[in-house]
Amino acid sequence: MPPEKSYHMTPQQFREYGRAVVDWVADYYERIETLPVLSRANPGDIRKSLPAEAPSSGEVFATMLQDIDKVILPGVTHWQSPNFFAYFPANASGPAILGDLLSSALGVQGMLWATSPACTELETHVLDWLVPMLGLPQKFLSTSNGGGVIQDTASSSSLCAMLAARERATNYVSNRRGCDGRLVAYTSNQAHSSLEKAAMVCGIGVDNLHLIEVDEKFAMRSDALQRQIRKDRESGLIPFFVSATVGTTSSNALDPLPAIGAICRNEGIWFHVDAAMSGTAALCPEFRFVQDGVERADSYTFNPHKWMFTNFDCNCFYVADRKALIDTLSILPEYLRNTATESGTVIDYRDWHIPLGRRFRSLKLWFVIRHYGVEGLRYHIRRHIEIAQQFARWVEQDDHFELAAPAPLNLVCFRHCGGDESNQRLMDRLNESGHLYLTHTRLNDRLTLRFCVGQTNTAGRHVEQAWRRIQEEAAKL
Amino acid sequence: MPPEKSYHMTPQQFREYGRAVVDWVADYYERIETLPVLSRANPGDIRKSLPAEAPSSGEVFATMLQDIDKVILPGVTHWQSPNFFAYFPANASGPAILGDLLSSALGVQGMLWATSPACTELETHVLDWLVPMLGLPQKFLSTSNGGGVIQDTASSSSLCAMLAARERATNYVSNRRGCDGRLVAYTSNQAHSSLEKAAMVCGIGVDNLHLIEVDEKFAMRSDALQRQIRKDRESGLIPFFVSATVGTTSSNALDPLPAIGAICRNEGIWFHVDAAMSGTAALCPEFRFVQDGVERADSYTFNPHKWMFTNFDCNCFYVADRKALIDTLSILPEYLRNTATESGTVIDYRDWHIPLGRRFRSLKLWFVIRHYGVEGLRYHIRRHIEIAQQFARWVEQDDHFELAAPAPLNLVCFRHCGGDESNQRLMDRLNESGHLYLTHTRLNDRLTLRFCVGQTNTAGRHVEQAWRRIQEEAAKL
Repeated sequence: MPPEKSYHMTPQQFREYGRAVVDWVADYYERIETLPVLSRANPGDIRKSLPAEAPSSGEVFATMLQDIDKVILPGVTHWQSPNFFAYFPANASGPAILGDLLSSALGVQGMLWATSPACTELETHVLDWLVPMLGLPQKFLSTSNGGGVIQDTASSSSLCAMLAARERATNYVSNRRGCDGRLVAYTSNQAHSSLEKAAMVCGIGVDNLHLIEVDEKFAMRSDALQRQIRKDRESGLIPFFVSATVGTTSSNALDPLPAIGAICRNEGIWFHVDAAMSGTAALCPEFRFVQDGVERADSYTFNPHKWMFTNFDCNCFYVADRKALIDTLSILPEYLRNTATESGTVIDYRDWHIPLGRRFRSLKLWFVIRHYGVEGLRYHIRRHIEIAQQFARWVEQDDHFELAAPAPLNLVCFRHCGGDESNQRLMDRLNESGHLYLTHTRLNDRLTLRFCVGQTNTAGRHVEQAWRRIQEEAAKL
Repeated sequence: MPPEKSYHMTPQQFREYGRAVVDWVADYYERIETLPVLSRANPGDIRKSLPAEAPSSGEVFATMLQDIDKVILPGVTHWQSPNFFAYFPANASGPAILGDLLSSALGVQGMLWATSPACTELETHVLDWLVPMLGLPQKFLSTSNGGGVIQDTASSSSLCAMLAARERATNYVSNRRGCDGRLVAYTSNQAHSSLEKAAMVCGIGVDNLHLIEVDEKFAMRSDALQRQIRKDRESGLIPFFVSATVGTTSSNALDPLPAIGAICRNEGIWFHVDAAMSGTAALCPEFRFVQDGVERADSYTFNPHKWMFTNFDCNCFYVADRKALIDTLSILPEYLRNTATESGTVIDYRDWHIPLGRRFRSLKLWFVIRHYGVEGLRYHIRRHIEIAQQFARWVEQDDHFELAAPAPLNLVCFRHCGGDESNQRLMDRLNESGHLYLTHTRLNDRLTLRFCVGQTNTAGRHVEQAWRRIQEEAAKL
């Protein structure tokens, strides 16, 4: 063999550059409040500062790290800022980031138990831990007939729920022969857009996802659901799937799980529960009421990567009947056959979602749970809810503002009394200031501001400052 | 507001623990060759060493890091070992790991341009860089009507290709009304299992994925494809999608893209090219022949997370007509509306794949390309191919072994002349030794060993040693 060159970073270089990156990250978190929360970049700004072609020779690491400051940061909206109140949180934390670093470095593939047993077993184990932590039913445990898996997003896991429901309803014939346009699914008209996307992707068609009206609290009306199911059966359609939401994206509405679950049971329909952000609240016994009725669910999804200090991506998806899921998604080509799989004693997560490859995502979740302990997680979730509730009271007490929806947890929907234009102007000015970032929705056809508290480092003082700034800007309207 | 506690890791603690993890990683790479490549864990071993319940109080970081050695490593199959020749590579590198660390720490969501402009623009830019780097057609550039996006896996991006094809073929009616069982897709009987999974997921049904026979090199027979399409049209079916493979998983077979592309053009069928691992070879002009004919593709997928030193997940997916993809997957709820999206001047990657949330994955790819430069990437890919070819020659020269398929690049399919049982025993013994790890497939109904060279640090000496060990074990049969 001829002598070899190497362009690889040596372990010694990795030590040096790795420390520089760790310091960069620590510095970033120390100065994050000095940066404008919402990026001020205009379309094309970032690309303009990048060379048109890839470099032909390698560059030094220090230059690349400097470019994070020079080129990237001006185009970053600081989701990790404690002054980020927009959309939903996507919070990270030290233990999560370091657990994920270990996952990147180990670089294992967990598609089969056999391709890295620890990747599968730690995931199963930590997802079992979460079942009592969140007060979820025992049937979701891997030691029963169910089990949990980490997916990338609730969009993907809700799609998998819909697919398993589709197959159970058609006796696994749709997988073979395709859909025939007769299956019909249900969710509320306030549910997340991912349900519509799932209906399109899985071949039932979005016209066959019936959006059920909501009550004055923006929660699904179970009587309307029951009526629609009857009507559809009379039309020769086959109701097969209902998705209820614990905390809608728009206003944090809580669908009535007990009533919806009862309908699903009577009708023999798959009952899915989407608790993407708000499921985390169930860590605290006093907030567990938000998912009362989840005992009847066939599947359940929530995102530690939203509000549980675990950096993206980390969605937890549970099913009561893992066989239905596996029979829906299983494919076993020769090159993946192995003794452990054939023994039937192991989980092969490849059959629990759409991708084949999968990284060791449970490491970061394991680190988060161990670093905080149940106690620490509960403390911070309680605190987020407490300061969001304080914000809601301030809104109520100010004659220029009103609450636009109930605020059961950490999301407050509110509006200025000046109408849509005032609210738009208020939001734009606040966001342009760089001091905070919040976003909007429409409720009862009126522009509504959303103030969501859930960023890791958001404390009382950030919410106090934000409210003061909102009042000050409103006074200028 | 009452005084606040904090369970969070402080930036100062992050500096300390982060250094410890960086050192752990460097140490791991320094000692990786002393570890058995294939984990020796039995089912349940890892779970046995984990406590039944989550800790109620937080633990110290040092304990968690120690548990990586004590609990996790015995259950890890070392995909990053230079003696890993199994399945396909899933290689990582220092610049990728550190780029990904920055992504975890920034923790931005890139679902919309507006939610973090740099996340979208860097991704578009780096994917444009790759077009000339790989000799791909100009139509895949974002500056034409096409563009590239990072997805998690080729499974997901092939599904998206099939979905866009489904919608184009039905004038976007399937999305609304669902599938009707008449669409039919094609791939070779050697194609990856993800195509079957995609056919099941997207509602056309796996019976409507017609597996085309292959020639003696395991490449799709274009004449058989043409015949099947004709037959299906005569039966009233609607051919809409062909997936050709550049480097099949089983044997690295190269489907004849020019002939398949011509058929697709004449028939008005979406032409998808799956170059998951082997696409990387096109970095080197002398290996670009493997994807001759890609000019006609409607979509193309390859994985830098396989053989381009970029840790999982990083799949690159290109389309010639981005409008077809976006019109297939677009959903715009009120809470995601924003000025930039409405201006039509930006890319919102949310509409390019199934998940809504997305992390800043282009950082690691950017770091890899800049660290190595095109020159460094080419050097290592050439070197992998060179040493794999050397291995193939050794196999050919040894009377006890034979090549089982052509070895155009870095995967060598071979077998011992003793029959299936000998090959199984040989493989098991080699893998049990811990010195190396290789896996199998079946070709022409005979057990075949796969030797895939693509791990970042695999050099000539590792392949030499592996061949010596294979010969030694074979002598004992």
